[in-house]
Amino acid sequence: MANEHIPYKIYLEEKEMPTAWYNLRADMKNKPAPLLNPGTHRPMRAQELSGVFCDELIRQELDNDTPYFEIPEEIRSFYKMYRPSPLVRAYCLEEKLQTPAKIYYKFEGNNTSGSHKLNSAIAQAYYAKKQGLKGVTTETGAGQWGTALSMACSYFGLDCKVYMVKCSYEQKPFRREVMRTYGASVTPSPSMETEVGRKILAEHPGTTGSLGCAISEAVEKAVTSQGYRYVLGSVLNQVLLHQSVIGLETKTALDKYGIKPDIITGCAGGGSNLGGLIAPFMGQKLRGEADYRFIAVEPASCPSFTRGVYAYDFCDTGMVCPLAKMYTLGSGFIPSPNHAGGLRYHGMSSILSQLYHDGLMEAVSVKQTEVFEAAEQFARVEGILPAPESSHAIRVAIDEALKCKETGEAKTIVFGLTGTGYFDMVAYEKFHNGEMSDYIPTDEELQQYAARLPKID
Amino acid sequence: MANEHIPYKIYLEEKEMPTAWYNLRADMKNKPAPLLNPGTHRPMRAQELSGVFCDELIRQELDNDTPYFEIPEEIRSFYKMYRPSPLVRAYCLEEKLQTPAKIYYKFEGNNTSGSHKLNSAIAQAYYAKKQGLKGVTTETGAGQWGTALSMACSYFGLDCKVYMVKCSYEQKPFRREVMRTYGASVTPSPSMETEVGRKILAEHPGTTGSLGCAISEAVEKAVTSQGYRYVLGSVLNQVLLHQSVIGLETKTALDKYGIKPDIITGCAGGGSNLGGLIAPFMGQKLRGEADYRFIAVEPASCPSFTRGVYAYDFCDTGMVCPLAKMYTLGSGFIPSPNHAGGLRYHGMSSILSQLYHDGLMEAVSVKQTEVFEAAEQFARVEGILPAPESSHAIRVAIDEALKCKETGEAKTIVFGLTGTGYFDMVAYEKFHNGEMSDYIPTDEELQQYAARLPKID
Repeated sequence: MANEHIPYKIYLEEKEMPTAWYNLRADMKNKPAPLLNPGTHRPMRAQELSGVFCDELIRQELDNDTPYFEIPEEIRSFYKMYRPSPLVRAYCLEEKLQTPAKIYYKFEGNNTSGSHKLNSAIAQAYYAKKQGLKGVTTETGAGQWGTALSMACSYFGLDCKVYMVKCSYEQKPFRREVMRTYGASVTPSPSMETEVGRKILAEHPGTTGSLGCAISEAVEKAVTSQGYRYVLGSVLNQVLLHQSVIGLETKTALDKYGIKPDIITGCAGGGSNLGGLIAPFMGQKLRGEADYRFIAVEPASCPSFTRGVYAYDFCDTGMVCPLAKMYTLGSGFIPSPNHAGGLRYHGMSSILSQLYHDGLMEAVSVKQTEVFEAAEQFARVEGILPAPESSHAIRVAIDEALKCKETGEAKTIVFGLTGTGYFDMVAYEKFHNGEMSDYIPTDEELQQYAARLPKID
Repeated sequence: MANEHIPYKIYLEEKEMPTAWYNLRADMKNKPAPLLNPGTHRPMRAQELSGVFCDELIRQELDNDTPYFEIPEEIRSFYKMYRPSPLVRAYCLEEKLQTPAKIYYKFEGNNTSGSHKLNSAIAQAYYAKKQGLKGVTTETGAGQWGTALSMACSYFGLDCKVYMVKCSYEQKPFRREVMRTYGASVTPSPSMETEVGRKILAEHPGTTGSLGCAISEAVEKAVTSQGYRYVLGSVLNQVLLHQSVIGLETKTALDKYGIKPDIITGCAGGGSNLGGLIAPFMGQKLRGEADYRFIAVEPASCPSFTRGVYAYDFCDTGMVCPLAKMYTLGSGFIPSPNHAGGLRYHGMSSILSQLYHDGLMEAVSVKQTEVFEAAEQFARVEGILPAPESSHAIRVAIDEALKCKETGEAKTIVFGLTGTGYFDMVAYEKFHNGEMSDYIPTDEELQQYAARLPKID
């Protein structure tokens, strides 16, 4: 315990909490590529998006220049119920590893949704309410986003309609019940409620659904219902904006104790957590004020950054959403069963994709079994049972700390611990029983999907 | 939001954390009645208990005079990983209820075991390790205690053997997997591993087990295995001593902001949480320094305080443990299915029983459906999904706050929120589906069990 004056957990005071979200795009020289209309291949304008998204969220989505967006008072009040989240010094893990490295993690799992998703859910629900809408629709796979959104909607008295991928709906009845506790209606997808759902059911009777199909149903429902809009929990610029609260708190806490990180790492599925965590630090790097190593961690089974291509692609498998330029495996790519449900997305946030393309960030992929080994090691010494998604970052933090042990360097490593694994015990059980798959897609498979990417000039 | 200077969450600093546990018995004029040897009916001596419990824990169990026990450095280090727990001002609940009351709750669910049980588990594991033991045995019903103990044993490298009531083992595979993640061995009880287990299986083939049977198996295993002792998560004096950390932190946090509670309430099964929460406040009351209303909340289906008798009884249904004087329904009493598994115990801590008997504390019983209504209301405005046990306290806190609304009094209510309900979604599902039972035992039923209490002079 080298730095005796640094507590196990650094909690900011209420008055130290951020009052504005930070828009990293304002400091990017190369801005993320704009969303394109899937029909015309021209940049989407606000007007074209207004049937799908709330007006204020569209403004946030398209604004590449304003560096700060004030956090409305109502959202700050809600944040105060579960934030600031602790920045934890992993003293016990350091001791276990016998490493000179100093490891910190920003823990976002201390709320009932169990993850960082709530940071954006409450913002999106607020703007929907402010616009006078009746409710919002969304899809959920693993269920963390659906849970967060149902909590947020319950708080503002908004109707919440969740399309849950049918196999998850059946396999995760507890997740479904948490959403019902918060008053959300949860429909297994595909359903008979939408045209696209009926079409899919007619073509594939007995299908257990997919995230792409659930997105299509949620969008259709929003567009065809009076007073409803669609909301999304990751990938979009607006979501990374809201999630900057993670990085801003982390930076304030580190600054308070004069700590300068060497490495900042987090798991990346759509990119909402990593984008939020690194935002203010990457801003410093872009402005030439400081330098850090940033590492995105993705599963080897769904390696968008490390083996994908940087190109325009559909955000959904149903191909109804706008085109986004991103590192992608192709919207038709279906990863092998991987328990980190939140990391199974075929693409990646446009902002992170641009930063990676510009060489400002690294990426590594890790195998599932290695991830669960790290998860269990972490759980046993640090007490927290981590979500499989978060455990990807734990794996890399441990690996980097072990490198320090070899070299003798006392690097400071900060990673994002996005959530808890209470609803992922089936995956832990498979791990304990030695039944976990480490399948990695072949080059041929990846080429096959990449070949079907839309052709954009 | 009347008191703008009081934050939503009061977190103590590390240096403000308690360095000693408070032993309420030292301030009690009427000491709790001693444990009796079930054969001789004479007070148990340390020597008689040493085959079952660790030496230091026996010392703590039997000491009615020492007011403070220093918390060893190793335990304080572990506490720092998940403590101090927040004292939360329930601003959102107050606003929802439109009450002038000020409501606070001490939230003990912010750790992977999901409850306050970890506070004593880590202490008991520490003393076992210090005594050079190989491991400990215990039983678990709902699974919170077993989870906490497995985390504590994993931290100190102790073997942990958990007998889990068979029906819970089968119905709660996720709880089981969490314990396995922490390296515990989990055996469904009754098992073929112990004499008592084999006997029960021979007499009742296909039985799904009971807590009493699991206790008997755990005790037998401890007594017959070299280097093992038995540990228990509630009821005992030593457990209330360790849990005083809850009340000490609460008092420091309230004092820091000059807040004086009028009512302090918590759920009571064996009494570990309530006893810990009220300890320092009750100490003040006993010393004549301050006055508070204390309210113990129990389920109407298992009403030890409100409808039980104050008498010596067996702590276990197998009748192998010492006799304790307590409010009890009789060790043969089996409550109707009630989802608050942690509140199904037939008896109550001797310390709390004596205080209740002396008129220093009140008790109320509440029906299950009303408890879940309170739980859902709380979850929707305060964000946290409460455990069914904890929700008993929420019910009473809301009821008292609504009385304040009628009378216009701005009372300060503090309640213990002992844990989270992530592993209790089956109960929530029954509540949502209107399938929850509110069965209350008849007077005849209770008299039948009370008639079988052991006869002690």
